[in-house]
Amino acid sequence: MPPAARIATFDNDGTLWAEQPIYFQFAFALDRVKALASGHPEWQTRQPFKGVLEGDMKAVTATGERGMLALIAATHVGNTTDEFAQAVSSWMASARHPRTNRPYTAMVYKPMLELLAYLRANGFKTFIVSGGGVEFMRGWAEQVYGIPPEQVIGSRARMKYELRSGVPVLRRLAEVDHIDDKAGKPVGIQQVIGRRPIAAFGNSDGDFEMLEWVTSGPGPRLGAIVHHTDAAREWAYDRGSSIGRLERGLDEAAARRWVVVDMKHDWKQIYPDEAKQ
Amino acid sequence: MPPAARIATFDNDGTLWAEQPIYFQFAFALDRVKALASGHPEWQTRQPFKGVLEGDMKAVTATGERGMLALIAATHVGNTTDEFAQAVSSWMASARHPRTNRPYTAMVYKPMLELLAYLRANGFKTFIVSGGGVEFMRGWAEQVYGIPPEQVIGSRARMKYELRSGVPVLRRLAEVDHIDDKAGKPVGIQQVIGRRPIAAFGNSDGDFEMLEWVTSGPGPRLGAIVHHTDAAREWAYDRGSSIGRLERGLDEAAARRWVVVDMKHDWKQIYPDEAKQ
Repeated sequence: MPPAARIATFDNDGTLWAEQPIYFQFAFALDRVKALASGHPEWQTRQPFKGVLEGDMKAVTATGERGMLALIAATHVGNTTDEFAQAVSSWMASARHPRTNRPYTAMVYKPMLELLAYLRANGFKTFIVSGGGVEFMRGWAEQVYGIPPEQVIGSRARMKYELRSGVPVLRRLAEVDHIDDKAGKPVGIQQVIGRRPIAAFGNSDGDFEMLEWVTSGPGPRLGAIVHHTDAAREWAYDRGSSIGRLERGLDEAAARRWVVVDMKHDWKQIYPDEAKQ
Repeated sequence: MPPAARIATFDNDGTLWAEQPIYFQFAFALDRVKALASGHPEWQTRQPFKGVLEGDMKAVTATGERGMLALIAATHVGNTTDEFAQAVSSWMASARHPRTNRPYTAMVYKPMLELLAYLRANGFKTFIVSGGGVEFMRGWAEQVYGIPPEQVIGSRARMKYELRSGVPVLRRLAEVDHIDDKAGKPVGIQQVIGRRPIAAFGNSDGDFEMLEWVTSGPGPRLGAIVHHTDAAREWAYDRGSSIGRLERGLDEAAARRWVVVDMKHDWKQIYPDEAKQ
């Protein structure tokens, strides 16, 4: 393939790093509710905030999708891009995963880091194409994955350029600009990259359309799915999982000639700082 | 500056190539009305299409902004990204500028090509940030400017991913997704690049906010304006021009320490295929 065509896209949650027991960005939102609570006395009595502050996750979950959106809105927007980047950076430096006690940025998959490096050594540009928030990922993706901010595609809030006491800022609005999931992934790819990648890597049905779009182009193509099969070293889930559900991808992988990676059998080591098993 | 910070953004119309007597993308729209007219008998009697088909530009102009949007909608959307790219490519191969009879891609500015090459030789990533349509530019920007599709930012129609007889396509909808002009330029930069460039180049007040955003960051910054002062070799226009109006930029350039490039006096040669004057 000519060098200009060597573009590979990677889902993030469950593909480059873990996504259990909750999406790491959601863990950030929960911690941020606690950090911001002193300025919001009304949260003491209002769900889902009350549940977050009291550690009552059942009450949080009971608020459903509407509650999740309220948490994201309260913790992700209204600030400027610089302020939000700072909040993510502080959190990432101190937060620890509840099961492994590792920093979240140490919950990345070593075989995927090797794949990213291998592709780049062969002239590929590597992009993240994630349902997660683009500004949540950009602050650490370069250090952790070697992927610079301009190669990170994700969901976006609308932004507004404005002057604050004469100083220009980009303010993050409480309006969705782009949801980079499912059929939104090929759209996000076209918006930012402007040509069809030749390789794509995902782990859930949220990646189905990206894999379909990438592997249905002309010439050699590669589509691959990371299948979470290792309950001991990581997690095992696919059909019926509320996070990272994988059904259609498994059903159609063989017919579409997508590679299914079996984490338990195919990966000697999962996390970079772990002894080989 | 560290290599990762070396990002430079360039407006396109009037900064990298000419924009007179009409935006070249508008010339494409006019030619495309003629090319598509046989499938649209109603255009024979409806403005602004009637005016385009009869060469009556006064009638076209009389329809105002509403008419311009009707022309763009009729010629730019409803197709797939692949179909549109093909239409642009065919047009670019055969269309000629009305004054110089050059291909439009030969109406680029040699000193700006040299600047792009100089910055890249010094580790910069160069991006286009244009009010023009991103899909209009991507097909030829790499060959003409050395700028790949993923480094082109522009105005966008919304897109929808769908299957046509089982084959996935991205259909361009008749809805605006992003207008990459004025305060939309810093927003487009953040959406795609995700960090603030350290150098920006423009020519009109449509570039004002981009120049302001780029040059108000910390550390060394460069903002520059191409001032069209050469009525003999190119065009001379600024204040009050309907295309490429430049007023606030001229008024504030000195106070903001933006470089104003005087085309007539500073550029020995304008187009690449022209003898030095």
